[in-house]
Amino acid sequence: MSDLTAQKMKQAFEILREKELDCWLMLDRESGTMGHTDPSLDLLLPTTIIGLTAFLLTMDGKAFAVAASYDTHNLEGTGLFDRVIPYEMDMREPLVELLREMDPGAIGVNDSEEDFVADGLTTGLMRKLGRMLEGTPYAKRITSAEDVAASVRSRKIAQEIEAIRGACDTTREIWSELTCYLKPGITEMQAMTFIHSQCERLRVETAWDSRWCPGITAGPSSVGGHNPPSDQITLEPGTLFSIDFGVRRDGYVSDLQRTWYIPSASHPQPPEEVTRAGATLRRSIWAAREAMRPGVPGYEIDTVARGIITEAGYPEYKHALGHQVGRSAHDGGTLLGPAHWPRYAEKSQGRLETGNVFTIEPGIQTSLGRYGAEEMVIITESGAEWITEPQREIWVTQA
Amino acid sequence: MSDLTAQKMKQAFEILREKELDCWLMLDRESGTMGHTDPSLDLLLPTTIIGLTAFLLTMDGKAFAVAASYDTHNLEGTGLFDRVIPYEMDMREPLVELLREMDPGAIGVNDSEEDFVADGLTTGLMRKLGRMLEGTPYAKRITSAEDVAASVRSRKIAQEIEAIRGACDTTREIWSELTCYLKPGITEMQAMTFIHSQCERLRVETAWDSRWCPGITAGPSSVGGHNPPSDQITLEPGTLFSIDFGVRRDGYVSDLQRTWYIPSASHPQPPEEVTRAGATLRRSIWAAREAMRPGVPGYEIDTVARGIITEAGYPEYKHALGHQVGRSAHDGGTLLGPAHWPRYAEKSQGRLETGNVFTIEPGIQTSLGRYGAEEMVIITESGAEWITEPQREIWVTQA
Repeated sequence: MSDLTAQKMKQAFEILREKELDCWLMLDRESGTMGHTDPSLDLLLPTTIIGLTAFLLTMDGKAFAVAASYDTHNLEGTGLFDRVIPYEMDMREPLVELLREMDPGAIGVNDSEEDFVADGLTTGLMRKLGRMLEGTPYAKRITSAEDVAASVRSRKIAQEIEAIRGACDTTREIWSELTCYLKPGITEMQAMTFIHSQCERLRVETAWDSRWCPGITAGPSSVGGHNPPSDQITLEPGTLFSIDFGVRRDGYVSDLQRTWYIPSASHPQPPEEVTRAGATLRRSIWAAREAMRPGVPGYEIDTVARGIITEAGYPEYKHALGHQVGRSAHDGGTLLGPAHWPRYAEKSQGRLETGNVFTIEPGIQTSLGRYGAEEMVIITESGAEWITEPQREIWVTQA
Repeated sequence: MSDLTAQKMKQAFEILREKELDCWLMLDRESGTMGHTDPSLDLLLPTTIIGLTAFLLTMDGKAFAVAASYDTHNLEGTGLFDRVIPYEMDMREPLVELLREMDPGAIGVNDSEEDFVADGLTTGLMRKLGRMLEGTPYAKRITSAEDVAASVRSRKIAQEIEAIRGACDTTREIWSELTCYLKPGITEMQAMTFIHSQCERLRVETAWDSRWCPGITAGPSSVGGHNPPSDQITLEPGTLFSIDFGVRRDGYVSDLQRTWYIPSASHPQPPEEVTRAGATLRRSIWAAREAMRPGVPGYEIDTVARGIITEAGYPEYKHALGHQVGRSAHDGGTLLGPAHWPRYAEKSQGRLETGNVFTIEPGIQTSLGRYGAEEMVIITESGAEWITEPQREIWVTQA
């Protein structure tokens, strides 16, 4: 972890240069018991602090911390800072003095309306910062570091990609076990309990709220989505069973969907309605992946995938095509969403960057249940590669 | 948990009436993967959401949520809301319509410079809220709900106190094992490893960052505090061994310090310097507890305890006497700190309330090492009671 944060900090310096932001300032307090207030600090700081602390990263590759005296030993121990400046009573004076010395033209803070991973500064701390800088030239140099925060989070480095692949590997291991377990008569809830027991066996947490991770949709009457599974709905022969699932391993998560067909006596193999839906979903996903490369805006990818679904005569999926994955299943930054839906519009204008990890998750409702498909790709300089083996045909459970 | 949040919500309504705040508004997003942005929602909400959600609690005991359509089923399932209002594209319209209907005179948001548990609104979401309310009379009715947020968090209800007591019980169980384990020659790091193995056996997490939970101080040369233990410093006969430790159980934590004497051939029992320091610390703690009752400002308690330490000829401890404990080891709200130290001043002006759980933790440096003592009390209508059995005399390890 400490090696990872050192590399992410190095990457942050490069991104500050690229985006021409002189100084990135983050504030944090009480992260030892509550976790970091600011999600960017999860990436950059291999430790926690108690007192109010200012972290300053500069375009010319320097890192400073202004910290309560009881936190400085710990911060110095990380080896990440050029200087850790202690204060006893009040941060104001050493902070202003440091800014005088640096004299940054712009000071970016983590403030974003649309991107929660770039919105780590709280209202009270923003005001406190304003008050500390009152009467100095720096008060007016405060700007949003949104782009920097989003890129540092979104451009995954090798170690992060490896961790995400690890989470995908564990997810696939659980599916293998699940495929042997699934059969008609099992309830949605039993399937979840089985998956959770596998998580425990493999010592991983679920990637999101364990009450709907996995999200389970068995047959046409299931609610699915971000809702707990049912203990009433059972796997019925001749229907679809679809799960949306991921695990957290080494701090990073997977987020993938897979679909099974439950064979019936009359239809031991999936009927044509199902194979057609599956083929359409795969065409949509493969085409989206083909269209992905650095510089392309997120909404263009959604347009490609959505078009294939609707041209095949299916209704539009009611969500974005995909989102980024990393320390969170929804990891902020650019989204693959429709350009004209207010909910997604701004974030879908963002452009794909090398190192982004995206899901591609169209979906089709069939008369036998939801056909869910969600794959994960990594953007490389020349295109997009699978993070893990995609589902190439529907899986069939025991009869 | 869902029972606890229902009770805390009921308590929140009472506190809104008491503090005469018409409406308490909280915003949250992506809490399923990142945890709640706002610490108040940990207390009030037994579930997580994905999309941007507004929670509104009113003085007359109503709870509303304005949520993305995919989150509403889940929120309705909690049974906590009078109404869950869905939006598809944009929260603005249903939120403004709801406010029109309620017409609150003041709308409190979680914004606090000094109290991190009451500072849950991020800068970007504050601006987004302002933009949504633009052109309505409500934009100017935004105020800070700091006092409400702090009281809801600080006034522990029976179920919370029970959970804290449970964490204390587990802590004491670990100390019993530790007392049998400790002996001369063991390193600080070995003591920590032993404690962590007990945590694993008892299936509890440490109360704060496990790299310095327990915080260990063995003998006079140890760094102690919020720093990892040493693998060089060993328990030496004739010195003190002090730990600052707590665990998390059912979402609530303990935070207690205990001190052991390591017997030497010449001094099988603690020398007078040690017994005198211990007696002084206990007098200081007992007097602080005696002085505690609802309505007394935090700094008065610090003055009582600090006075006993300095009158006995010891230097002042360099921190506040005590802090609140709950879901976090440092749980925000009123502090027992010195009135004139800028770092603590504002929060130490707060007054003790029934249901507050405080630590009392003076400390004395002896020539044989740090004598740490930290007890926990609960404020009742008539005074303060121990949360768990205090340390009444120093413990002695094996020789």
